[in-house]
Formats: sequence, structure tokens, C-alpha cells
Amino acid sequence: MGAGAAALAGSAVAPMFARAQSATPVATPVPAVGPMFSAFHDLTHVASPSFPMFPGAAQMQIDLLVTIEDDGFYKNTLTLDEHTGTHMDAPAHFIPDGTTADLLPIENFFAPLCVVDISARATDDPDATVTVDDLAEWEAANGPIPDGAFLAMNSGWADRVNDAESFINLDADGVQHYPGFSGEAAAFLVDERVVVGIGSDTLSLDPGNSTDFIAHVTALGAGLYGIEGLANLSSPPAAGAMVIIGGPKHENASGGPSRVYAVEPQ
Amino acid sequence: MGAGAAALAGSAVAPMFARAQSATPVATPVPAVGPMFSAFHDLTHVASPSFPMFPGAAQMQIDLLVTIEDDGFYKNTLTLDEHTGTHMDAPAHFIPDGTTADLLPIENFFAPLCVVDISARATDDPDATVTVDDLAEWEAANGPIPDGAFLAMNSGWADRVNDAESFINLDADGVQHYPGFSGEAAAFLVDERVVVGIGSDTLSLDPGNSTDFIAHVTALGAGLYGIEGLANLSSPPAAGAMVIIGGPKHENASGGPSRVYAVEPQ
Repeated sequence: MGAGAAALAGSAVAPMFARAQSATPVATPVPAVGPMFSAFHDLTHVASPSFPMFPGAAQMQIDLLVTIEDDGFYKNTLTLDEHTGTHMDAPAHFIPDGTTADLLPIENFFAPLCVVDISARATDDPDATVTVDDLAEWEAANGPIPDGAFLAMNSGWADRVNDAESFINLDADGVQHYPGFSGEAAAFLVDERVVVGIGSDTLSLDPGNSTDFIAHVTALGAGLYGIEGLANLSSPPAAGAMVIIGGPKHENASGGPSRVYAVEPQ
Repeated sequence: MGAGAAALAGSAVAPMFARAQSATPVATPVPAVGPMFSAFHDLTHVASPSFPMFPGAAQMQIDLLVTIEDDGFYKNTLTLDEHTGTHMDAPAHFIPDGTTADLLPIENFFAPLCVVDISARATDDPDATVTVDDLAEWEAANGPIPDGAFLAMNSGWADRVNDAESFINLDADGVQHYPGFSGEAAAFLVDERVVVGIGSDTLSLDPGNSTDFIAHVTALGAGLYGIEGLANLSSPPAAGAMVIIGGPKHENASGGPSRVYAVEPQ
């Protein structure tokens, strides 16, 4: 449905709304469906004009275009940096001739989810990073990182998402301070394990104070995708869930807003 | 990563690109992952500035914002009508106080997929609709529409997507001609079966020549979501696959671009 609908439909639409509104309550009609899964976790923040952005990037705009009252239906125009909200970084974001998001194979958007929790350390040190030791500790507890996994850092940062100042956490010199992947951990995942992507609950795969963006370059340079701004990573288990990523699919995408779920098999 | 990265990173970034580019080929590192599934189908078109839009709606814009060559990384600004490409219609699109897309329960985005193929009829008659008889025929062949299903119309229209004129198919009076759901079929699905959503491979849930948008009003009025502009519906089986919908999650969403997959269980 588009902007022309009201013009084409004229007043014929209005009575139908009244019928629908009075006769059928607007509610989800059925309970959860998905006999293959026992639990569903939404790892996606709500994007909005107030969502914290990497310094210098424009805030998303949501401009009301038409309303049911005036036009018969409701919609908005969206204006956004591709790297807004919970979003994907495709290899093309950092790598010349890297794959764009629309061309990534969808099989890689279904992956065993490994959640590495460094939130205790990050509480005291906003510059904390995922280290190779953290990965070893995860494997000691959960077994080897499965081939084809997606590995996510839970730094607890998602709890700050409604306070942009705290989420971006600039110091007096304008340097950001939030956790990310160390270069060594990124290299370990690329060279010693077989993963399809890595994710963070902050604005970047790299820690906020990075100047070389080594985690980005290492992961995207190896053809992995990244997901930034993940939500709700304390909800799924550290191991055993499957991440499913509804990635962006527009032409030449360096990345884009993504819907990210974790599901647990029955 | 945002617009400030180049400024913060300065020249430190450039050498890393060279290393990544030469040392690690940009390629998908692993074969398909997903032992739960035996087949993956992408039901999503590539959105672009040339994607066919409902008459009167603005084309998507993709504006280059920064480049690796000049800025150290690549990204775009997107400007789009929420109802662009393969996208969701939330109840709020047509129904006062209807649920917005960001608030729909994610459990309903995992659903048994039922594909009703009317492409043979639509080839001869662009005004063809999914009828109650079509639904009965589908059930005779495949068994009852499962509770919690997502039912999609395959009219063959996706084959026209690269030819906007043919996809929109206006007549001399400016009336669109493409298939959709009949009001009776929509009412049957809402009243006699338990479905979470319905989808089409055209610009609308209703046929192009609709003036009352009865399929929209009936489905969205009952709290279902719609998906329009589905791709590749001949690829999954008519029954037995699961649709997974990566729906939009921005504030007040009347709908938005969605990544839609069909997967077949092992």
C-alpha cells in the first residue's frame, strides 16, 4: 500500500475501518507458534530518533507521511544511516570489494549462538575487551565454539541504551569508552575457529577507544559479518540457542538495521 | 561504526585495510550452518531506488555517505517509505489503535508456511484473487491450514519485479491490475482458521483494482500482519516449510522492510 491508496480509494475506505474496529478487536489472534522451538528471544532494540549513534552519525528520522484519520491509512518516511539501531556491518563496510549485506548467503544468518559475558569486568572498566582468555573460559564451560557459530559479546551495555550519553560514554577528549573485541580475540575467532559472524551490544565491534578498528578489519576482512547494538543478550543461554538474523536487503548495503532473534530448540 | 570513525581513526585505519585485503580473501568462510534445517529460501526482494512502488509513493533513495577510499569505511543514508520492497503491514497501517510492527509478538514471526499458487489463473487474468475455493483446494491437497500459519499468495507476480510498469500494471484510467486476496478468502482465514499473517507477491494484499481494501481491513483488523512484495514463492513447498520473518523494529512502525525466509526442517 502506498501514498496513492487514499486517492484511489476515496471515501470507500472509511466505512470499512469502522466495521473492522468495532467488530474485531485488534489483538494477536493466537498463542506462540513454532513447535520446533521452546523459547524465543528478541535481541533487537527499538530504533528511534533518540537511539545512540556513533559520534558524528545522524540520528534516524521518522516523518509522519499519512494518517488513518486524514488519508485512510498510516505510514511514515524513514531517513537513516545504515548503521542505526541493532544493525549489520557487511564486509563492504570496511573492506574494498567486500561483500555487501544483500549478497551474503542466508545460510550464515542461522547459526549456533555463543554469548561471552564480560559484563562483570565491564562494570568496573568500560574499556574492557573480549580476550582470548575469555574465549577459552567460554569453551571450558560450554565446549568448543561450534563450526559456523555467531559469537556475541554481552558487556551489559544494552542496559544503557536509553541514556545515549552513558552508552557512548565520551571522555573529556571526545574519546568513546565502551567494551568491544580485542584484536587478538578477533584473530583467534577468524584463524582458530570457524565462525560466520560476531556481535556486540555496543556501538562497535571494537572497543570505543580503538583507533585502528582491528576487530572490524579482522572479522570483516575474513568475510564475516558483524552485528552491533545487540539487545537482551542476558536472556538466551551462553550456549545452545540458535541466532537467526533478518539482515538488510537493499542494493549496495554496507549494512543496515537487522532483526535478530535467538531461539532455543525444543 | 558511524560518521565519526574516520575522524577518530585518522590514518591508522588505512594500513589495516591493505593487510585485510591481501591476507584474507573476502569470502564466506564456511558452508551452510543450521543442522535443524535442510533447505533455506529467501523470500525477500532486493530493495532499491527502482523497486516498484504503490502509485503515489516515493521511490527509496540510497545516498552514498562515506567511502573507504576517502573516509576509511563505506556507508549510505537510506530514505524510504516504510512500505518499500518486501515489507510488513502492521495492524496500525489501517486500523486505529492497531498494533505497530515493533510491538508485534515475535513468536508470530515463526509460522507454518502455506503457499497458495494462483499463478496459472493470474497469467490470463491480472485481476484474479485468492478465493475460498482456492483455500479449500489447498486443504484438499495438503491437509487443514495449521493453527498459527502464515498464508501466502503466489501469483507469479514476482517475475515482473524488474519491470515496474508490468508489476504495477496500470490501465488507461490509472487503475492497477494485479492479483490479491478476495474479501471472502480473507474473512475465511480470519473467521474459520487461525492464522498469524497473510502475504502476497504483489504491491498489496488486495487486488490492484480494489477500492475498499477489504483484505487489508479484514486481516489487519483481526490483528494479523501482512507481508507484501514477497519473492521466490515457487521455491518452498506449498506446505511443510516454516516462514521466519525479520520484521521492522523502529518506533511507531506502520510496517517496514522485512527479511523473510522459508526454511525446511531436517
